[in-house]
Amino acid sequence: MTDPDAGGGDVDVDRAIRDRRELVNDAIVERLPVTEPERLYEASRYLLDAGGKRLRPTMLLLVAEAVTGTEPMAEDYEAFPDVGGEPVDVMSAAVSIEVIQSFTLIHDDIMDDDDLRRGVPAVHREFDLETAILAGDTLYSKAFEYMLRTGAPPERSVEALDRLATTCTEICEGQAFDVEFEGREDVDTDEYLEMVELKTAVLYAAAAAIPAVLLGADEETVESLAGYGLDVGRAFQIQDDLLDLTTPSEQLGKQRGSDLVEGKRTLVTLHAREQGVDVENLLPDDEDEVTEAQVDEAVATLEAAGSIQYARETAQDLVASGKANLEPLPEGEPKALLAVIADYLVEREY
Amino acid sequence: MTDPDAGGGDVDVDRAIRDRRELVNDAIVERLPVTEPERLYEASRYLLDAGGKRLRPTMLLLVAEAVTGTEPMAEDYEAFPDVGGEPVDVMSAAVSIEVIQSFTLIHDDIMDDDDLRRGVPAVHREFDLETAILAGDTLYSKAFEYMLRTGAPPERSVEALDRLATTCTEICEGQAFDVEFEGREDVDTDEYLEMVELKTAVLYAAAAAIPAVLLGADEETVESLAGYGLDVGRAFQIQDDLLDLTTPSEQLGKQRGSDLVEGKRTLVTLHAREQGVDVENLLPDDEDEVTEAQVDEAVATLEAAGSIQYARETAQDLVASGKANLEPLPEGEPKALLAVIADYLVEREY
Repeated sequence: MTDPDAGGGDVDVDRAIRDRRELVNDAIVERLPVTEPERLYEASRYLLDAGGKRLRPTMLLLVAEAVTGTEPMAEDYEAFPDVGGEPVDVMSAAVSIEVIQSFTLIHDDIMDDDDLRRGVPAVHREFDLETAILAGDTLYSKAFEYMLRTGAPPERSVEALDRLATTCTEICEGQAFDVEFEGREDVDTDEYLEMVELKTAVLYAAAAAIPAVLLGADEETVESLAGYGLDVGRAFQIQDDLLDLTTPSEQLGKQRGSDLVEGKRTLVTLHAREQGVDVENLLPDDEDEVTEAQVDEAVATLEAAGSIQYARETAQDLVASGKANLEPLPEGEPKALLAVIADYLVEREY
Repeated sequence: MTDPDAGGGDVDVDRAIRDRRELVNDAIVERLPVTEPERLYEASRYLLDAGGKRLRPTMLLLVAEAVTGTEPMAEDYEAFPDVGGEPVDVMSAAVSIEVIQSFTLIHDDIMDDDDLRRGVPAVHREFDLETAILAGDTLYSKAFEYMLRTGAPPERSVEALDRLATTCTEICEGQAFDVEFEGREDVDTDEYLEMVELKTAVLYAAAAAIPAVLLGADEETVESLAGYGLDVGRAFQIQDDLLDLTTPSEQLGKQRGSDLVEGKRTLVTLHAREQGVDVENLLPDDEDEVTEAQVDEAVATLEAAGSIQYARETAQDLVASGKANLEPLPEGEPKALLAVIADYLVEREY
């Protein structure tokens, strides 16, 4: 996908993501080797090795280029010149963010008792509950180790670490609200969006703001980038909820409609309930009994209520707001790519 | 208990622990308030509120006094003068270490499927599995937040954070070895002690070394204190294993002999097996069927094999080595208390 209207000339977002994903994958293999105890580290790597788009680390690497006005892929990410020309290992920060994401997925799958993730068994299914809890805990501290090993000046490292720690606390709070909402009838869309901000968007905000911190960008730039991450992160989650309804199970790597079966609150179901749809009974309670035809029918009902369109528009508004937050950055291809990635998050089909 | 031979005049270790425990407890309540989402923070506080001796934070506060040559309890721990007289909030570091300990207990109880801890239900029993995983994850990042809020100069904070992150990774590795050992017949005492170093002792090492780092002590002092922590931490775990056999269930807050029932490898059982004791069949496999009389009989068998004495002596040797590591510290009551606390760890009865 190229986007000639993005303001930075022709940019190829697919290629930008693919190129950086390969570098991130190499860095993960190198920095998280399978050492003793082997079963622990195999479990820690299992989900990372199963794939993933690496959107957050890609965003982090693009921000590094955007805030320093560097040409795309022109510099070594492991010795990336900061605002004063001193080398910073921004790849270590990128791996840190991806490892946090992986830790949260492993623990979330235990909590949701999900069987599949990225088309392979969840870690607690492939290994066992104990090992999955421990693998998540190991990735958690490893992420802090990686964030400490960027070689940035100590005062910047401390700020980056502070943002990372606060972000992790907020992710836990968001997940706790998500669990609480499953048992409540009166959740409104504001509460839902606040939960999404904590559970999902803060990690995008960290991915966007932390490279700016590490490279010595000014406070206004850091805060604008955090705002960009919060907006596109919320849009991403809304799109994720939409994809759970519309993407074939095979492509999704898990049962389509699983959120409906589990009674998860989403922007779609909250809107539908306000329109008088009996959301609880759109699908059977037992995932094993759900047929593709039943999911199709449920989606048609949500379409008819305008709920899918409503969620799509909300996501698009957030993307527009996120792109506006890029304003302080110097013009160039990295900035253009950050804008296109924002669009990509709500246009992607899986 | 007073110990006139400790080299620092009469020191009252019970009072020293009690006084600091109260301050640590106050700091936990103040710094980890029950805010929204309430159930998450109630679960995060539950085990901390249930008690605990606060040995690690007490050790941390004593080290702060010992490395700076400060009179016991004479300075505010929240603005504690470093080697240059600048204030450092060592209480924040003390809370961090205790919160890490609490997180590991919550997740360990899930992994071991233990019902009781400190005489109250384990967090996953009092709340549920989801909430217990999340409470542990929340305490994990909170610990990093607390360690970042000491007000120490950034380069010291970065080193303290690095030690904390590495320590957490090692604790996970130790727990993974512990789980692996349960399924293996050929574990030897060296492997066992290496596992204990990772699972338990490194957190004592962090508690002893980190205040020295934060207050600006020299590298030799920091490493000696880390060595002290490693030694007494291993001794502590061996004593913990002994207490599981010898302390009444009521006082222990959980079933006496539970390690034997679960097939845990301990220094006692590894030694007994080498003496030809059929360790696997000392107790029934089902905890509900175990009687106090059966536990008494099992302990008598282990006594007769010399295994309990062997473990006691190993712990005492480690304590002696740990105390030798205190040598570089300035003489005074805090140093004497650190020596007496080392003895206390292997003399305590629960």
